[in-house]
Amino acid sequence: MKKAAVIMAGGAGTRLWPLSRRSRPKQLLHIVEGRSLIYKTYERLNASFSPDEIYVIALAEHLPAIAEELPALPPTNLIGEPTGRDTANAVALSAAILHERDPDTIMGIFTADHLIRPTDQFVEIIRTGFAAAEKNADALVTFGIKPTEPHTGLGYVQRGEPLSPGVWHVVSFKEKPDLETARQYVSSGDYYWNSGMFVWRTETILNRLHKHMPETHGAVTKLAQGWSTEAGQKLARDLYPLLPKISIDFAVMEKAPEVLVVEMALDWLDVGNWTALPSVHGTDAAGNTNAAKRVTTLSSKNNIFVTEGDHLITAIGVDDLVVVHSPNATLICHRNEVQRIKDLVEQLGQEYDGFYS
Amino acid sequence: MKKAAVIMAGGAGTRLWPLSRRSRPKQLLHIVEGRSLIYKTYERLNASFSPDEIYVIALAEHLPAIAEELPALPPTNLIGEPTGRDTANAVALSAAILHERDPDTIMGIFTADHLIRPTDQFVEIIRTGFAAAEKNADALVTFGIKPTEPHTGLGYVQRGEPLSPGVWHVVSFKEKPDLETARQYVSSGDYYWNSGMFVWRTETILNRLHKHMPETHGAVTKLAQGWSTEAGQKLARDLYPLLPKISIDFAVMEKAPEVLVVEMALDWLDVGNWTALPSVHGTDAAGNTNAAKRVTTLSSKNNIFVTEGDHLITAIGVDDLVVVHSPNATLICHRNEVQRIKDLVEQLGQEYDGFYS
Repeated sequence: MKKAAVIMAGGAGTRLWPLSRRSRPKQLLHIVEGRSLIYKTYERLNASFSPDEIYVIALAEHLPAIAEELPALPPTNLIGEPTGRDTANAVALSAAILHERDPDTIMGIFTADHLIRPTDQFVEIIRTGFAAAEKNADALVTFGIKPTEPHTGLGYVQRGEPLSPGVWHVVSFKEKPDLETARQYVSSGDYYWNSGMFVWRTETILNRLHKHMPETHGAVTKLAQGWSTEAGQKLARDLYPLLPKISIDFAVMEKAPEVLVVEMALDWLDVGNWTALPSVHGTDAAGNTNAAKRVTTLSSKNNIFVTEGDHLITAIGVDDLVVVHSPNATLICHRNEVQRIKDLVEQLGQEYDGFYS
Repeated sequence: MKKAAVIMAGGAGTRLWPLSRRSRPKQLLHIVEGRSLIYKTYERLNASFSPDEIYVIALAEHLPAIAEELPALPPTNLIGEPTGRDTANAVALSAAILHERDPDTIMGIFTADHLIRPTDQFVEIIRTGFAAAEKNADALVTFGIKPTEPHTGLGYVQRGEPLSPGVWHVVSFKEKPDLETARQYVSSGDYYWNSGMFVWRTETILNRLHKHMPETHGAVTKLAQGWSTEAGQKLARDLYPLLPKISIDFAVMEKAPEVLVVEMALDWLDVGNWTALPSVHGTDAAGNTNAAKRVTTLSSKNNIFVTEGDHLITAIGVDDLVVVHSPNATLICHRNEVQRIKDLVEQLGQEYDGFYS
């Protein structure tokens, strides 16, 4: 069967403002070893897939920047959504397009904004996932991250009976739990973090979409047929924005009769906000994280400093700050307050009519 | 007699880094109502003097920028020092040049980096000072700021018998006192802050310099004669750097037989470091000072935000910080630690070979 790896890069993301902007979402920021998260995702997948087999689905307006980040990808492997309609529609559109090109395809769905290490273990786990989807034609396969802490910001997947080495039947999907529940999940050993990564035959996922999201299924089937034509693109701009906005978990996974989970027991990091950077970049003796070429500090500890270029950041006598410099805006935020960055960006949108958004 | 007002603008000043740099000292920063301190000084003097009567003495390398700030000044009124040799030599050089042009001159010496308000009272006090110097040919006249607090970072002038309205004989000059002594000075009512502003006949100050600094006196007399020639400028570059570096207070004022003080009872602010800005710009309801066009904050108080252009500064959940953005460097400093900025700049000089200095 034909293999395909689809990177979903639809996130807009204000939580890494002021580096992330509407026009430059976080997966395009060069914040990991001088590379972007989407490049790191591509690089990791490229250990299992040829560039011809790797696809990206993202907002159409971001495709030029993505093409620049990933010059090895064939232009026809970049799928532009006219607008963001959540993961169910992104999965549906990419599945329909792949299925139209070759109905005998197994596709993996991968997130663009997570860091996963090491790559050799990742390659093994992906192989296990694709093999499971090939052997079990009707199954939807999800990857479950082995939890390292009782995280309350993630959904969980409960596993049941084992099927084959590294693969289990799924009993249920769980929404973000409270801390007590999360602790029980983790100590039981039967729960995984929901990774947002999947693998299935295009035929199988399209069948499930046909059942649970008939409108979306009808639309993406039609769009896939004329995708490469001017008329098809015009139709996409008309139809796609009308599709119901919903996640693939709610729309399909929780209702599917046969779901499998492949254990992913490795370093997995959601770079969801600036406080994830110490895990990416490490910290110096004073607890400072320098995601910046030029930082000089006196008597300052547990800060996170971020810039992309040669701009120098200096600090004297300050602790527990997130300091982010961008060419036209600077953020100074207490590290316990990063969840309020989205409020700030919303306020700025009103004050400056989107200039800094 | 002819009148002249000389603005001494020799300060290099790292304490307003990263806006102030070697090439752009603090008197040139646009931090007061969008204007520079030297412009505000010029404007204040221009209420008493015509542009022809106003002079600036500064490092030669800063003259082009100063000429841009003060386009009304005749170019020959800008006196360039080849290098900084402290105030005694700056006073001596400007006195000699003025004396060479017209020996019947009374000159005032004014600092470039203080804010003084209101101008109409300033005009009155300057008139009193010039009148005192005209009537008392042998006197050196200093302006004494009426103290508003027991400042330990300034020198003091002790007054004796009154001479005429607003003018007293000086008993002694005092170095920076400890807090207890400063309190006694202020409560006695007989002490002024040493303003660094003076007025005297060129002949009188040159006589005093001849007595106490014969080397300097000889050099500046020679330099003044050929000042406007190429050879004179070459001689200045050779001679001036060799002159003993000393302040006019130490060199002359403390030893002079006849010193008068004119009381200056008005708003006087030494913009010596960033924490002076709240007095210049005021504070908002949260205690923040915004010396910046664009600042947006959430839950942040008692901060000082500074940028010169359109760059946006944002803050969430931070207190008591000084945040200064410049095109190639940003400073985040606790407001109680601003005295360490000079250490930081020194360290940067070593790390980056002067690039940010």
